[in-house]
Amino acid sequence: MLENTSQASIDERCPVQVIAEIIGQKWTSLILRDLADGPRRFGELQHSLGVSPRVLSTRLHALEEELLVEKEIFAEVPPRTEYSLTEKGRLLIPIIDEMRRVGNLFKKSN
Amino acid sequence: MLENTSQASIDERCPVQVIAEIIGQKWTSLILRDLADGPRRFGELQHSLGVSPRVLSTRLHALEEELLVEKEIFAEVPPRTEYSLTEKGRLLIPIIDEMRRVGNLFKKSN
Repeated sequence: MLENTSQASIDERCPVQVIAEIIGQKWTSLILRDLADGPRRFGELQHSLGVSPRVLSTRLHALEEELLVEKEIFAEVPPRTEYSLTEKGRLLIPIIDEMRRVGNLFKKSN
Repeated sequence: MLENTSQASIDERCPVQVIAEIIGQKWTSLILRDLADGPRRFGELQHSLGVSPRVLSTRLHALEEELLVEKEIFAEVPPRTEYSLTEKGRLLIPIIDEMRRVGNLFKKSN
């Protein structure tokens, strides 16, 4: 008997909720903001966000699992690791841009 | 000596972060989504979101404090209470619209 709870079932969530569940995660919007400008190393992201390595690592891993971020390791000495948005992840950039625009309006109105 | 931590100080947060702190709160995007279509009663929101009255009440109160949502009480029997977006709250609608657009793309790609 089929149950309607598997990944294979039709996704009946509201599309707004689909995105809210991604960008509602703490730090995610800021990671996306930084990666929208191009690939970043782990240390660059950590410095920009002011977040602990453990938390950043967990968030990046989750974004990789959601196929929004991909990691590339360059065979250098020492090895260099860069994170960038996937094609799917880049679909989120207009939302980040809109958040920036409205955030600036909010800051002016304070 | 002035400390740079008061509300009166210049808001140095990134504008993306300003918005992430609002719509990153659980349920907030969905409340904004519903109110974007016009005023809603408490019970209508509760039914639409499938959230407990206590949680919804807390979230609406927070949104009122942030001047994003306003409550109007109509002197009827029984009294009718409606929630709607303020002018400031309506500035968030384009973000919700963009989330809906991208959320639909994500759902198609699954």
